[in-house]
Amino acid sequence: MYKGNKYISPAIIKRLPRYYRFLGELKSEGVERISSSELSKMMNATASQIRQDLNNFGGFGQQGYGYNVEYLYNEIGKILHLNKPHNMVMIGAGNLGSAICGYKTFPRYGFNILAVFDVDPNKIGSHIHDIEVRSMDELEIFLDDNAVEIVIVAIPTDNALDVMKRLEKTHIKGVWNFAHIDYEMPNGIAVESVHLSESLMILNYKIANNDKTID
Amino acid sequence: MYKGNKYISPAIIKRLPRYYRFLGELKSEGVERISSSELSKMMNATASQIRQDLNNFGGFGQQGYGYNVEYLYNEIGKILHLNKPHNMVMIGAGNLGSAICGYKTFPRYGFNILAVFDVDPNKIGSHIHDIEVRSMDELEIFLDDNAVEIVIVAIPTDNALDVMKRLEKTHIKGVWNFAHIDYEMPNGIAVESVHLSESLMILNYKIANNDKTID
Repeated sequence: MYKGNKYISPAIIKRLPRYYRFLGELKSEGVERISSSELSKMMNATASQIRQDLNNFGGFGQQGYGYNVEYLYNEIGKILHLNKPHNMVMIGAGNLGSAICGYKTFPRYGFNILAVFDVDPNKIGSHIHDIEVRSMDELEIFLDDNAVEIVIVAIPTDNALDVMKRLEKTHIKGVWNFAHIDYEMPNGIAVESVHLSESLMILNYKIANNDKTID
Repeated sequence: MYKGNKYISPAIIKRLPRYYRFLGELKSEGVERISSSELSKMMNATASQIRQDLNNFGGFGQQGYGYNVEYLYNEIGKILHLNKPHNMVMIGAGNLGSAICGYKTFPRYGFNILAVFDVDPNKIGSHIHDIEVRSMDELEIFLDDNAVEIVIVAIPTDNALDVMKRLEKTHIKGVWNFAHIDYEMPNGIAVESVHLSESLMILNYKIANNDKTID
């Protein structure tokens, strides 16, 4: 992306959520400022990399003072567009869907799950963490009526493809996909997939090679 | 890491699970060979990057023939140490733990969950996807008796810290952490954390910037 007239590389963008998370923790602990060397310990990166990364956002660090935690938190939040609420729905009232509905950090960042959708008549009408489970038949109408931006797909692979095809025709902006498929939306709807098996393989690699350079 | 006398960068290592997954799909579909341009379409990368990446493992590609799917799959599997089974246990019989116990891809890659541990007396003795739920009191003995390599931590943040401290004193090799904490094991036990909020933030960033360079 470009911030002002400055290009920010994908590698840096991918580290921003981590900065944001750490800075949020510091902020909630009442910490007002932090040095690049303290931040580097938290981030498991070199102080020089931290300074390089953060210089991309206007060089907020001051010699002998460090970084203002709240300012940096807010600036990174703006780049990640976390400064406004986002409506989401969950597809899948199974274990994974239920687990995600219970995450308290998502609403804290402005991500609100408004409804859960499932095909199982025994689940429709019940509640998961106070969120109503609705019939898949109501999906499209609900998405439109509630200006839903993000749909979370937490259903088995076999059914995920059909759901993706239905979502293509809606006005949503993004899909957060947990199904074991790779699917590209043809119409500019963003897709971010969580492939847990890849994370497990990386852990396995770290174990086998005692390699600490992978974070 | 070094393969022979050649250094392979962390960025490439992190892409290997994805190659492995795609090649595994091709293999199970009976595909015998694939060109770098076909692979690049699947991977959403340039053919030149694919060739550069795969050249690190001995340049198996042949002009006009492409890559031998099974050979490449096996070679990458060796680098990721997926050519032997790995014993795991799950800590946490909640929704997330149950969801992970149901993933069929993990056993396929040799990762077997032998037991689930929980503190809830109502859950102890029950089964999740045929895996017995045991008392946390039995954890250390079970880990030793069964040569467990990997412990999956799928419990709330508040309890995760205590569990991490218990795990430090065991002979396990790695922790796959889903709790909302960052914890470094002091004794060479590898840790790989899945922070779902970071993935959601990246999706949000993609939406806001219509940025397809982040994968």
